[in-house]
Amino acid sequence: MVDPVDLLPGGTLDTGLLNTAVNTLVDGVNANAASMDVFFILFSGYLVFLMQTGFAMLTAGSVRTKNTKNVLLKNVLDACVGLVAYYLFGYAFAYGPSSNPFLGHSNWALSDNTQDFHVFFFQWTFAATAATIVSGSVAERTSFYAYLGYAFFLSGFVYPVVSHWVWGGGWLSDIFTVGAKDFAGDAVVHMVGGFAGLAGAVIVGPRIGRFDADGRVVPMPGHSATLCTLGTFILWFGWYGFNPGSTLGISNQSPDANYTATAARCAVTTTIAGAAAGVTTLIVIKLRDHIFDLLTILNGILAGLVAITGSCPWVEPYAALVIGIIGAFVYMGAAAALLALKIDDPLEAFPIHGATGLWGAIAVGFFAREQLLFQSGYGNDQGWQGVFYGGGGRLLAANLVMVVAIAGWTLFLIAPLFVVLNVVGQLRIPREMEIEGNDISKHGGEAYPPDAVITEEMLAQKTIDNLGMDESVRRDPSGEASAV
Amino acid sequence: MVDPVDLLPGGTLDTGLLNTAVNTLVDGVNANAASMDVFFILFSGYLVFLMQTGFAMLTAGSVRTKNTKNVLLKNVLDACVGLVAYYLFGYAFAYGPSSNPFLGHSNWALSDNTQDFHVFFFQWTFAATAATIVSGSVAERTSFYAYLGYAFFLSGFVYPVVSHWVWGGGWLSDIFTVGAKDFAGDAVVHMVGGFAGLAGAVIVGPRIGRFDADGRVVPMPGHSATLCTLGTFILWFGWYGFNPGSTLGISNQSPDANYTATAARCAVTTTIAGAAAGVTTLIVIKLRDHIFDLLTILNGILAGLVAITGSCPWVEPYAALVIGIIGAFVYMGAAAALLALKIDDPLEAFPIHGATGLWGAIAVGFFAREQLLFQSGYGNDQGWQGVFYGGGGRLLAANLVMVVAIAGWTLFLIAPLFVVLNVVGQLRIPREMEIEGNDISKHGGEAYPPDAVITEEMLAQKTIDNLGMDESVRRDPSGEASAV
Amino acid sequence: MVDPVDLLPGGTLDTGLLNTAVNTLVDGVNANAASMDVFFILFSGYLVFLMQTGFAMLTAGSVRTKNTKNVLLKNVLDACVGLVAYYLFGYAFAYGPSSNPFLGHSNWALSDNTQDFHVFFFQWTFAATAATIVSGSVAERTSFYAYLGYAFFLSGFVYPVVSHWVWGGGWLSDIFTVGAKDFAGDAVVHMVGGFAGLAGAVIVGPRIGRFDADGRVVPMPGHSATLCTLGTFILWFGWYGFNPGSTLGISNQSPDANYTATAARCAVTTTIAGAAAGVTTLIVIKLRDHIFDLLTILNGILAGLVAITGSCPWVEPYAALVIGIIGAFVYMGAAAALLALKIDDPLEAFPIHGATGLWGAIAVGFFAREQLLFQSGYGNDQGWQGVFYGGGGRLLAANLVMVVAIAGWTLFLIAPLFVVLNVVGQLRIPREMEIEGNDISKHGGEAYPPDAVITEEMLAQKTIDNLGMDESVRRDPSGEASAV
Repeated sequence: MVDPVDLLPGGTLDTGLLNTAVNTLVDGVNANAASMDVFFILFSGYLVFLMQTGFAMLTAGSVRTKNTKNVLLKNVLDACVGLVAYYLFGYAFAYGPSSNPFLGHSNWALSDNTQDFHVFFFQWTFAATAATIVSGSVAERTSFYAYLGYAFFLSGFVYPVVSHWVWGGGWLSDIFTVGAKDFAGDAVVHMVGGFAGLAGAVIVGPRIGRFDADGRVVPMPGHSATLCTLGTFILWFGWYGFNPGSTLGISNQSPDANYTATAARCAVTTTIAGAAAGVTTLIVIKLRDHIFDLLTILNGILAGLVAITGSCPWVEPYAALVIGIIGAFVYMGAAAALLALKIDDPLEAFPIHGATGLWGAIAVGFFAREQLLFQSGYGNDQGWQGVFYGGGGRLLAANLVMVVAIAGWTLFLIAPLFVVLNVVGQLRIPREMEIEGNDISKHGGEAYPPDAVITEEMLAQKTIDNLGMDESVRRDPSGEASAV
Repeated sequence: MVDPVDLLPGGTLDTGLLNTAVNTLVDGVNANAASMDVFFILFSGYLVFLMQTGFAMLTAGSVRTKNTKNVLLKNVLDACVGLVAYYLFGYAFAYGPSSNPFLGHSNWALSDNTQDFHVFFFQWTFAATAATIVSGSVAERTSFYAYLGYAFFLSGFVYPVVSHWVWGGGWLSDIFTVGAKDFAGDAVVHMVGGFAGLAGAVIVGPRIGRFDADGRVVPMPGHSATLCTLGTFILWFGWYGFNPGSTLGISNQSPDANYTATAARCAVTTTIAGAAAGVTTLIVIKLRDHIFDLLTILNGILAGLVAITGSCPWVEPYAALVIGIIGAFVYMGAAAALLALKIDDPLEAFPIHGATGLWGAIAVGFFAREQLLFQSGYGNDQGWQGVFYGGGGRLLAANLVMVVAIAGWTLFLIAPLFVVLNVVGQLRIPREMEIEGNDISKHGGEAYPPDAVITEEMLAQKTIDNLGMDESVRRDPSGEASAV
Repeated sequence: MVDPVDLLPGGTLDTGLLNTAVNTLVDGVNANAASMDVFFILFSGYLVFLMQTGFAMLTAGSVRTKNTKNVLLKNVLDACVGLVAYYLFGYAFAYGPSSNPFLGHSNWALSDNTQDFHVFFFQWTFAATAATIVSGSVAERTSFYAYLGYAFFLSGFVYPVVSHWVWGGGWLSDIFTVGAKDFAGDAVVHMVGGFAGLAGAVIVGPRIGRFDADGRVVPMPGHSATLCTLGTFILWFGWYGFNPGSTLGISNQSPDANYTATAARCAVTTTIAGAAAGVTTLIVIKLRDHIFDLLTILNGILAGLVAITGSCPWVEPYAALVIGIIGAFVYMGAAAALLALKIDDPLEAFPIHGATGLWGAIAVGFFAREQLLFQSGYGNDQGWQGVFYGGGGRLLAANLVMVVAIAGWTLFLIAPLFVVLNVVGQLRIPREMEIEGNDISKHGGEAYPPDAVITEEMLAQKTIDNLGMDESVRRDPSGEASAV
């Protein structure tokens, strides 16, 4: 609240008052912009957090009923365990004020007591996303302790270091002078999750029965296409926090940038790429398999959304269309390749997030426009842009280094972890448990307990003798006379 | 970011500096307002997009399991195919800068490269809503190609032209000087969807078994009341983007209008109308059918939300209550009428969106208050308001022309399309497929595959012989020793 | 929109113009801040409203299929009936401008026609939350009319009066000079719901079969862990409206407060407490029961979110961790105590909301920091803060009075209502209806009708004779020739 002022006390201009008033107004304008940006970041972060719900529903729908509680719990704990790891260590590694090109090393457990809590919140939601992606690749046969271990490790160290490299002022942020550019995290988030998932899927091995004796794929459908659709829609919705939110502000704070137009462009290109990839998948699968394949189309949409994540504010709408279409092909190709290699990735997390994330990071090098880089606040005066706009290969080269470095780093850290866990017999659940399902043996019962379902027979019987009632209740039931 | 300034360098006022500083502040204040409005429009659009999820869940829950994937896919593609159509043509027809009273004809595929991407995004979400409504009316027996055709046509042409008429400066926007007024689209969106759905439901005919040999209605319940409830709640939530978001800004940019108060009023009237309609339906159905009918109450709530959509910022809270209550009766009456006419609209999309949308558009002519029209930025100085506030019938007349024109336009374009598709045998799926369900024949299997459900018998058997396992996995299972 | 101005017409400074311009800018800055705050409150309110969806899904998943429609309808009507009650009376009791220390008594049905509709909207979503909590405690065996009665009473009177005491300038707001402090409503909202639920659960008695003849607990699992997870995630998401939204603004309007930092801190502490409680529950239940218990962990997360609700802007991150961990223990302890006392609270609403809400309200007295109270706009100059920061016991004492007063008030009003209903036989449904379930007898059929599920047998039969078809449809099926 800025107070009104009378600049003409006694009819003459009080210049001291004027100077103060104008600078108070300067503060007021800046304060409004700053508040608006925090508001924008918080609500964008809320949407990214909601993606946990989307992943949970998508994963649940994609597995068999016998493992439903197991995958749901893993998704829930990605948020919880990941938060603890990111709060204690991760944020410090990623954005600690004391830092070197490799990692940050201060502000442990938010101990610096700074006023950037909204930044912590937003960044945590991204860490949680990276961790969640992995759970899909290793679903239905991985030990719970192994899962807890890698979720903590990924959220607390693997991902934060990568985000420091690209977004926290680390070595990739200025490589080849132009710096690797990955707006909302195709390499930083999706590749980390997707490649960690790939390592897991390879090392833990396929689910029992996924490939038959001749190596042919045996269909192993999840238990609910409705949950998959719900999850995908929620993820799409959450992506509007993920991509436009990565503008990290909505006010036009800087004279060189237009954050408002940047965020709006992100919303549009994200939508176009997701929709285009969905339509592409629809057509290709219809031609190939002669069905309108809902589940593959859902994954195609997710692939389109991943594909545009790295470049969303820097490309034209038509380019978003192209990036999304190619993203759908990358996803379908990678999915086919995994099956040909007998790698079982139940959620297709590597094709969607790993392979398509890689494509999206590279697409920046082809489609980014200089003026849009400026507009997003990534500007510089050096004329670097995508190959297709005559920018030469420097941006592309920087991003190629980035994808190689991030894939390498992720595999380098995660693969040994999974291998060691496997060697000591702590990676995969026992065969009998896998056949029976995780839920009964580890989680106290089925996700959909038969006891909770009333059947025609039970009603036909109309007897209460087998209901195990408390005798006192039986003798004096409350409300017996109730009309309702 | 506005920089501080010293207006008194050397102790005396620098008037040139002052003039610049004050005008920089003017720019800063305006920029903050503009950024805030884009922020508001984007997030409102996100909520409207989420309504796709709501429709998907509501539709899925309202059909039988055998068609679940089919209806889910149609909902998914409303967003995807509709986006392609709206991006390529629709937005140009609706809001192209080059326009005539009938349609716009420029900015194809966003080629003008303007900075109004947030407007495109917001308007697309409305187009997707109109398209989605239709799918409910023709669910469970309509050809997939027919569906793809009308979704593309509706999103790319039918709806955009209507929106141009009322919101894009077309002929209805200034009819009878006052102009037809439909704030968030009772006629523009809901009637288009509802009447297109009616045409479809009539022409495609009822589902097999919906009416018995004597013409009596056979109950044909959907498979999940939970999904219907989830969908309805998500739609209600999304409506807060649809109605308050249609303020198209939240800052008080204009001296004559108060967008802030307008948006807040929309949120309240929307809530009141939806809740009042829900309670009304509860009471009426209890009195009529002697049950507390969850599914009808959910539809009643939706009818209340539709009813207030056209007038939400222009009416008093008590009027919202009345509009919602009448909306519930309109919905229930139209639903009964359809059944009496042996028209099978599985989602009751016409009663909810078509008939109640018509009521909502007309209600503007009765309940709109002049001062609230001013407040919403629709003001003029001519004293026009609703009949109940002494405004004469001019506003009502304009809106009556609007509903007739929009119903006529929609039926005029959509009915022939459906008739032609029917004549060439491309509208309705074959009888055998309808009985079997769409999912098995066209979508590669059931939404809830029995294979994905573990049963007591399977567990009792505890054998893996019939699991089609890969022999190599059987011989050397990973992690056999795992304790978890 | 502020217009540019030329302060130097003819080259000399027009001081009158300058004075006007500067004050116009003052108005513009303030208007932007005010609009932003309304925007923030509206969207926060939308999130809180979405919590209804979360409660509905959580409750549905926690009951048996035979009562699913019943609990869903109760959740739907919490919003609808609660809105009517809060609109007509509740808001006036809570925040009516004419008021005394006990209650407000003006602005019935928003009749004052003020511009605070966003406040009404936000406050209503809190009233709906309080009402919804109760429905979990009395699920599966309570009369529908009894439910309608207490929902109306709670939303229209019990809760509004409490909110007046603490937030509306009532007697608790300045008790012991410092005033009871409950930021987002641990006592005001969660305790009201939780204690009303406790009264209901005790008086209505346990569900048939919940305890066996020897008083041992019989497991009575709900029908879908997936719905429980969905509901919990949606609640967590909605909590970002509940807690940060309770800042009631995001701009830094006051020189003494920083609303922006306050809201951001709330988001972080809320996340930390929820996650910490989830991890705590994971570990404790694993140690105690030897399972990774998804459902208890979900409730643990909710308990963590409740625990931090009262103190979220006033505590350090480490304190949020501690408050969440203790909250998990309070929840688990209260849940065990209820079972030991043979009280059947199907959703554990009292342990989560009542007991943990009480803990959260008391935690304020231990962990609140003075500087953070100032920052949130609750500041004063008297040096009061939590016991752990040397603030003495005054704040703790005020909050202890608050929790006693609110628990007493709620029980004092609700318990007699339930007792009277019970005496006249209107509280509990008849025994036969309870065994059969509410849905078939009162709600027109099952939530998941067997008729809507296609079975292998039905498909194998491939006959339509038993489908009750309309003969006219049979003789001339539309689209028989369709290829799709």
